Amino acid sequence: MTLADQPPAAALVFQTLLAHGPLTRAEAGRRTGLSPGAVTKVATPLLADGWITELGRPAVAERANGRPATLIAVRAERARFIGVKVTADEVIGVLADLTARPLAARRARLGSRDVGTVVRAIARLVTALREAAGARQEGGVHSVGVTISGDVDGHTGTVQYSPFLDWRRVPLARLVESATGIPTVIENDVRALTVAEQWFGAGVGLSSFALVTVGAGIGCGLSIGGRVVSGAHGVSGEVGHLPVGGGDRICTCGNTGCVEAVASTHAITEQARQATGDPELTMAQAVRLAHSGDPAVRAVFALAGRALGRAMASVANLIGPERIIVSGEGVASYDLFADQIRRTFADHAFGAAADCDLVVRPLPFEEWARGGAAVAAQRVFAPSK
Amino acid sequence: MTLADQPPAAALVFQTLLAHGPLTRAEAGRRTGLSPGAVTKVATPLLADGWITELGRPAVAERANGRPATLIAVRAERARFIGVKVTADEVIGVLADLTARPLAARRARLGSRDVGTVVRAIARLVTALREAAGARQEGGVHSVGVTISGDVDGHTGTVQYSPFLDWRRVPLARLVESATGIPTVIENDVRALTVAEQWFGAGVGLSSFALVTVGAGIGCGLSIGGRVVSGAHGVSGEVGHLPVGGGDRICTCGNTGCVEAVASTHAITEQARQATGDPELTMAQAVRLAHSGDPAVRAVFALAGRALGRAMASVANLIGPERIIVSGEGVASYDLFADQIRRTFADHAFGAAADCDLVVRPLPFEEWARGGAAVAAQRVFAPSK
Ligand SMILES: [Zn+2]
Ligand SMILES: [Zn+2]
Repeated sequence: MTLADQPPAAALVFQTLLAHGPLTRAEAGRRTGLSPGAVTKVATPLLADGWITELGRPAVAERANGRPATLIAVRAERARFIGVKVTADEVIGVLADLTARPLAARRARLGSRDVGTVVRAIARLVTALREAAGARQEGGVHSVGVTISGDVDGHTGTVQYSPFLDWRRVPLARLVESATGIPTVIENDVRALTVAEQWFGAGVGLSSFALVTVGAGIGCGLSIGGRVVSGAHGVSGEVGHLPVGGGDRICTCGNTGCVEAVASTHAITEQARQATGDPELTMAQAVRLAHSGDPAVRAVFALAGRALGRAMASVANLIGPERIIVSGEGVASYDLFADQIRRTFADHAFGAAADCDLVVRPLPFEEWARGGAAVAAQRVFAPSK
Repeated sequence: MTLADQPPAAALVFQTLLAHGPLTRAEAGRRTGLSPGAVTKVATPLLADGWITELGRPAVAERANGRPATLIAVRAERARFIGVKVTADEVIGVLADLTARPLAARRARLGSRDVGTVVRAIARLVTALREAAGARQEGGVHSVGVTISGDVDGHTGTVQYSPFLDWRRVPLARLVESATGIPTVIENDVRALTVAEQWFGAGVGLSSFALVTVGAGIGCGLSIGGRVVSGAHGVSGEVGHLPVGGGDRICTCGNTGCVEAVASTHAITEQARQATGDPELTMAQAVRLAHSGDPAVRAVFALAGRALGRAMASVANLIGPERIIVSGEGVASYDLFADQIRRTFADHAFGAAADCDLVVRPLPFEEWARGGAAVAAQRVFAPSK
């Protein structure tokens, strides 16, 4: 039996248990819109095949009508997944169980960004992770989830365009599958991290949230009603190219006024070089200068902060999320633009949209890789998404 | 029996039939994630009570395995609804059946904008519509759906804030209920029109779309995965206050850079007055001057068009909708800014987001009122939404 053979209601119940943890059958019914009888019916083969399990009874207070009810839960050890995050110079991998709990992690440098090099590095990482955890036990590694920045088509497994790797139309899922012998799915890295935050991070239990990542690029994942927005044409969450004004620097996309044109790591470094007259200045040096009080470099971070604040206000005004989570490498120097972000956000958030909670959350690349494992686990019984 | 007493699966099947029209039980199962058996089970009491009906068999080509299957459909005549749109100087009402098909329409001028006057005008409109269509037959009028611009809390039935009526915390649903004796729900007017477009307009069958309304205000409704986004704090779709730059005019919200500050009817009129030096110029005169080629007035429309184009590109970059529908009173003079909208949209839409379809669609206020009837029909079996 594969889960893909199960009726849609089985997938619905399983997804709900994955996202929410142990539930009574009645509660699973309420959350899925199924009758308790329908839940019991679809749960039976899942129990028989070990994908879910019955737990002890819940606390007395949680029993309906005083009658005890058994909890059903995903059986974490039933399958293992490997999540991989590809950056411009590294691959980061995590072995995780069915609930995306990490069991082992590994990193490897990339000698170059060509497709063959990256695929071989992923394959070695997968081998190391399987050996590290003795993952040849029950179920072995069920599938691999690779996450990568850019326009990624998860349905066909193709990286349509990844600017930072300079890849176009790379059938990455198929290539990794050939190199590892393990079924592979791929996803945009920010969307995968949003899945992870929704499932076991700062997005748990929220009706909607946005995840804004600040770093080499400015990305955004949107979760609305428990689903990550993917965009009808593959594009969504492109806050980096929102036309919020704030300068005449030309963006990588060719426009002026984009958030990325003033707030990406590259844009901040370039502007700090101009401000100091030092053409060799690095981002780390710019951060140090700003911390030491250099007014010209501080102004560069302030400009970036205002652009980010306008971008977050745009997200709040359009979507009205409960929370905006800010992450990415850029949060390491978040103190340098935190004030401008908060002030500009408060100025431009319309009415009650300003009640949206702003949370800063450093997430190491292992968490991004874990997002890949979460995406792979979610696709077990919905292979074409 | 009320539909609110039915299990959630019944509401799910009923909503699906409302939105998609007649389906076989198997197709209803596929669309809801329910097994055919579960569909049959929940359909039985709905059939018995006349909310749904069985239609003839579908064309041979649509039968599964060559076996004929019966279609089930919502029974349009089972209940009637009145939808009302409140503008600054008029109330517009439509009597519609369960599938939101209009049976009669009426309009009435508003003598003033105070709450009592508006509620009495709505009550008279409701009476006129009931009499016009002899609606005292089976089921009478089930409920009234009033739609109004502003921050509207559909759960509590309260208009939190409506700038153009200058209302704050008005319990409108309760007041209309008292005046008419008919259960009443309320909704933000742009969200209600989005429900209508999703159900029987230019949004039918789309995975996602945005509806941008241009006029006295600039509004936006978002439909993603078949649901209209409502915002965690009641605010969503506020494209009018996206900070897209483009001028130093102060917006009604106190900021500069908002779309509404340059593109609302009021903003265009004010700017045209400045451009011509005529402090009495009306919007209609501004449109005539622009059509006659007056360069200064044409520039005012061009500025508005660029702000609208940046706003629509922001929607496309964040959400990636299949289509953006442009409507509202402003489309009457759409030719005056169409070029700037399309060019600016194409410039700022990121990558494949530019594939989003832009559709201009004049919708009379009767269609907005029909949105109110659609919202009322959708709430029949989900009263608290
Ligand atoms: Zn750009
Ligand atoms: Zn504004």
